[in-house]
Amino acid sequence: MKFVANKDDLLNGIKIVERATVVKGLQPVLANVLIETAGVNQIKLTATDFDLSIITLINAQVEEEGKFTLPAKKLGEILSRLNDELINLELNGSTATITSKKSKFDIIGISANEFPQVEENISETDCMEIETRPFTKAIREVVSAAAGYETNNLLSGVVCEVNKNVLEMAATDGNRLARVREVVKNTSSDAETAFEMLISSKVLSELSKISLLADSETIKICKEMKKIVITIDKTKIVTRLMQGQFPKYNQLIPQTFPKEASVNKSDLIAALERVAVMVNEKNSIVKFEFADNTLKLSGDSPDAGNSQDEIDIKYMAEPLAIAFNYKFILEFLKIAESEEISIKLNSSLSATVFAPVSDEDYLYLVMPVQLRG
Amino acid sequence: MKFVANKDDLLNGIKIVERATVVKGLQPVLANVLIETAGVNQIKLTATDFDLSIITLINAQVEEEGKFTLPAKKLGEILSRLNDELINLELNGSTATITSKKSKFDIIGISANEFPQVEENISETDCMEIETRPFTKAIREVVSAAAGYETNNLLSGVVCEVNKNVLEMAATDGNRLARVREVVKNTSSDAETAFEMLISSKVLSELSKISLLADSETIKICKEMKKIVITIDKTKIVTRLMQGQFPKYNQLIPQTFPKEASVNKSDLIAALERVAVMVNEKNSIVKFEFADNTLKLSGDSPDAGNSQDEIDIKYMAEPLAIAFNYKFILEFLKIAESEEISIKLNSSLSATVFAPVSDEDYLYLVMPVQLRG
Repeated sequence: MKFVANKDDLLNGIKIVERATVVKGLQPVLANVLIETAGVNQIKLTATDFDLSIITLINAQVEEEGKFTLPAKKLGEILSRLNDELINLELNGSTATITSKKSKFDIIGISANEFPQVEENISETDCMEIETRPFTKAIREVVSAAAGYETNNLLSGVVCEVNKNVLEMAATDGNRLARVREVVKNTSSDAETAFEMLISSKVLSELSKISLLADSETIKICKEMKKIVITIDKTKIVTRLMQGQFPKYNQLIPQTFPKEASVNKSDLIAALERVAVMVNEKNSIVKFEFADNTLKLSGDSPDAGNSQDEIDIKYMAEPLAIAFNYKFILEFLKIAESEEISIKLNSSLSATVFAPVSDEDYLYLVMPVQLRG
Repeated sequence: MKFVANKDDLLNGIKIVERATVVKGLQPVLANVLIETAGVNQIKLTATDFDLSIITLINAQVEEEGKFTLPAKKLGEILSRLNDELINLELNGSTATITSKKSKFDIIGISANEFPQVEENISETDCMEIETRPFTKAIREVVSAAAGYETNNLLSGVVCEVNKNVLEMAATDGNRLARVREVVKNTSSDAETAFEMLISSKVLSELSKISLLADSETIKICKEMKKIVITIDKTKIVTRLMQGQFPKYNQLIPQTFPKEASVNKSDLIAALERVAVMVNEKNSIVKFEFADNTLKLSGDSPDAGNSQDEIDIKYMAEPLAIAFNYKFILEFLKIAESEEISIKLNSSLSATVFAPVSDEDYLYLVMPVQLRG
């Protein structure tokens, strides 16, 4: 194998695929990126952790065909430190030599034969194509509500549905639920049939980051029985379709709320962060007391002391005291783009909805924590 | 105890003294700062880890005398999140209450009786007063060459001498030696007698950082048999004078060098950082080959591969190959203020001196590593 490539292109490609490498795993080859020539003008980079595989193509001037695997991290470090625009890569036995101006690196790699097979082909019968920006905005708005990936249960997934021109995405970990709807251009082959999938929140987060590196206006998603292939420009993400029945989350969202508050987002973030200095670190509970255009916040830490704060809000309903894990609320507030936040309340024990005043299609439902005493 | 203070003053004071707190020690009170009223217009903050004590005074309107200890970290977190200029602090039994506008915090503390006695008084017979800027510049230039504090040996100290108008500071860990001389205004009571001390490099690093917070043009240092008190404006640092005979380092610096190279600092940093991607992580050896206005650098990692680079330099002497721990060289290069660096050489096994071309009073001597084979 021998080729000349633009340094920044190759570095960008490494940054895209290395998100799927396994650095300290049992198989050293999974820390490597597979580099293959693909015709005379392209090379293909692949990395995989079996669950998630990422493949990308970059332009190169191929002088000799071949394939080999090299450690993604070392390769990235070397490329990011080089000054010149062009690099040469040439394979010599178990070593690849990178030269660029007066710099030269012999990098020990692993044979491509040891790299697992990644099947990126998929039938194009069940696909949808969507604009990148609303799709990644929706991802950002819901992923934090999904359960941690470690648990490997259905709740670590995100439901994603495109029905005609509406994208709906939702995630829940049982204590909170985020749902977003976006009007999108749907250029699917069969726009009349709804496209639905349950996909790992971790994969969606990676997809968001990759979409910043692989600058493309649209994203194409195809699915089969057990597999999803997402295409962003010259990059393909291969992962598994999660199987099982996700909770019917829309039924969990109350339709009406007897009480509603309107709160300035920055005021609430500042007050919550102050009060949070003194909370029980085990449950992160902050008490919210709504009354008379005022929101009183208080925290109590058994070892360190307690805290109180107060902000002006719009609230004319009957007084209500309710407690939340403040971290859930802060996560929502830091994502919400509106300066005014609406809080829709029922009772101290009922699901409460936080939503940006400017965007009715995004909501964050949080279950309260029971107050003692 | 009860007082009103400016929030930023109090926060700045906490930031200064908290460098001496012990966060996870056996004595919880050492994670706290001792707060004492000092007359009607000041409060005194003290923190200590026994080796190092820091005391600072801040302005306050004292309404009720007293003293108490509070956790430095929590106090800093609370103050940094408050918006208003003024805070009230009032002691109630084992709790101090901080109020500021609509925010209120009850912080559980520990009685001042449990706080160790810190003796900040010192006889003023053996003192010197020095300008802050050249003193902290000298600290920055030498501390990295001192041995790690953990070893608790003499080499973890820095020699500091003021003789008439010249400050000399030096540190060595046995593999490298940094020495700096600065012309300073010496306003000591007895400027004819040299002032000399051996002081922990860790304390000097803290002093550098504190001098940024306690904005003062001069620093006063007094010593007794076993103790040093450093005064920066309203802050006092109390530490022990290290005892013992520091190596006669000036004898270790060769007077003449048969070979000399002149190197661009940025070029050398970039090339070293490239080559360093492929070095043995155990010894960090990079080989330097000087010949014919060229410096060739090379690294070799048994597992990952090898690297080579080359930069243009000024060097007309006989070719010389020599190897160093590249981390020592990079540390010097990142401190040195000159763009041109002079490298003074003798043989492959001789002490080599790195110095900024623009500043002959600063030098960094590095012992080479023997090349194999």
